[in-house]
Amino acid sequence: MSTPPSLQNLINALKVLPGVGPKSAQRMAFHLVQRDPAGAVQLAQAIIDAQGRLQHCKLCNTFCETELCDICQDEQRHHGQLCVVEMPTDLWSIEATRAYEGLYFVLMGRLSPLDGIGVDDIALKPLLARALDGEVSEVILATNFTTEGEATAYYLSELLRARGLRVSRIARGLPVGGELEHADPATLAQALIERRHSE
Amino acid sequence: MSTPPSLQNLINALKVLPGVGPKSAQRMAFHLVQRDPAGAVQLAQAIIDAQGRLQHCKLCNTFCETELCDICQDEQRHHGQLCVVEMPTDLWSIEATRAYEGLYFVLMGRLSPLDGIGVDDIALKPLLARALDGEVSEVILATNFTTEGEATAYYLSELLRARGLRVSRIARGLPVGGELEHADPATLAQALIERRHSE
Repeated sequence: MSTPPSLQNLINALKVLPGVGPKSAQRMAFHLVQRDPAGAVQLAQAIIDAQGRLQHCKLCNTFCETELCDICQDEQRHHGQLCVVEMPTDLWSIEATRAYEGLYFVLMGRLSPLDGIGVDDIALKPLLARALDGEVSEVILATNFTTEGEATAYYLSELLRARGLRVSRIARGLPVGGELEHADPATLAQALIERRHSE
Repeated sequence: MSTPPSLQNLINALKVLPGVGPKSAQRMAFHLVQRDPAGAVQLAQAIIDAQGRLQHCKLCNTFCETELCDICQDEQRHHGQLCVVEMPTDLWSIEATRAYEGLYFVLMGRLSPLDGIGVDDIALKPLLARALDGEVSEVILATNFTTEGEATAYYLSELLRARGLRVSRIARGLPVGGELEHADPATLAQALIERRHSE
């Protein structure tokens, strides 16, 4: 007795998803075939649709369905500021704050040598071209404060400052409403080191 | 700035998968679109394929691509024994032991009132019809030893015995090669209660 080929194919295909091993793939396949055939059809269609429609914004590299994304098309935004983030989700998080009026650049990843993601695997060259277009005067590095995000920020900072651009990094510190008692020691130490002097 | 519609659709569609919440769905969608377009196409195709080809075996209810599965078609198997399992994976596990030569019945689920899975949601009626076909003399209940699996076994046992069938349940106890020191107390207690007397 062997697994029917089309079921085995589906299980194998599901394993391309990040974080999905053989057991989850099997569970997902059963669910799709047995419990949610309508959802399965929708999923297949959504994949095909997304592949057909999604492209990268020519300016900021985020996902969009047009040549330029809404933000890059917006004349009201400050064209002198460029905020560099790892992924579109990060861009959406910053947009949700309504505290930033400049433009973005989405790397679509981070430097991560251990995962085989090097300088050529993220959008560094397009970022350089974008940052050196003459309009941009400040680059704000908003990669994550993970090891990889920090390394990426450091690398970008060296690269961009060598070309005469002003470069900044978003601040680390306690969260708004945060209590010292509940902050982790590393964050608290960083909040001390990066203290702002009263003006 | 909003998520492009086709990307949002893909994220929503991925959420039908069991164990996938909004964050994982987003991560999966990015992975499919950004890192593995070939895998994405294969996944869509595999879903459509599986939906088109897979059916349930007319006799044992497992997944197959033909009217009867390999096992039910096999004249060499003992047609008097029927082993009831929850899912096709369980059937495959038992087949891998090569210790069983009877036939199977796959419930495609278990009774689980808390999840809204009641008597009408698993293949109880087809099981009854199958077990009472006149050829089957013993039904072996091999549902899991979880709360739901045990409840399902109990319910089936009552149902089938009332109709004059011999019903058995696979044994609980220590695993082969298992040491008492490492067994959990519940399993060890059960192994004591269900001890086999020497003959």
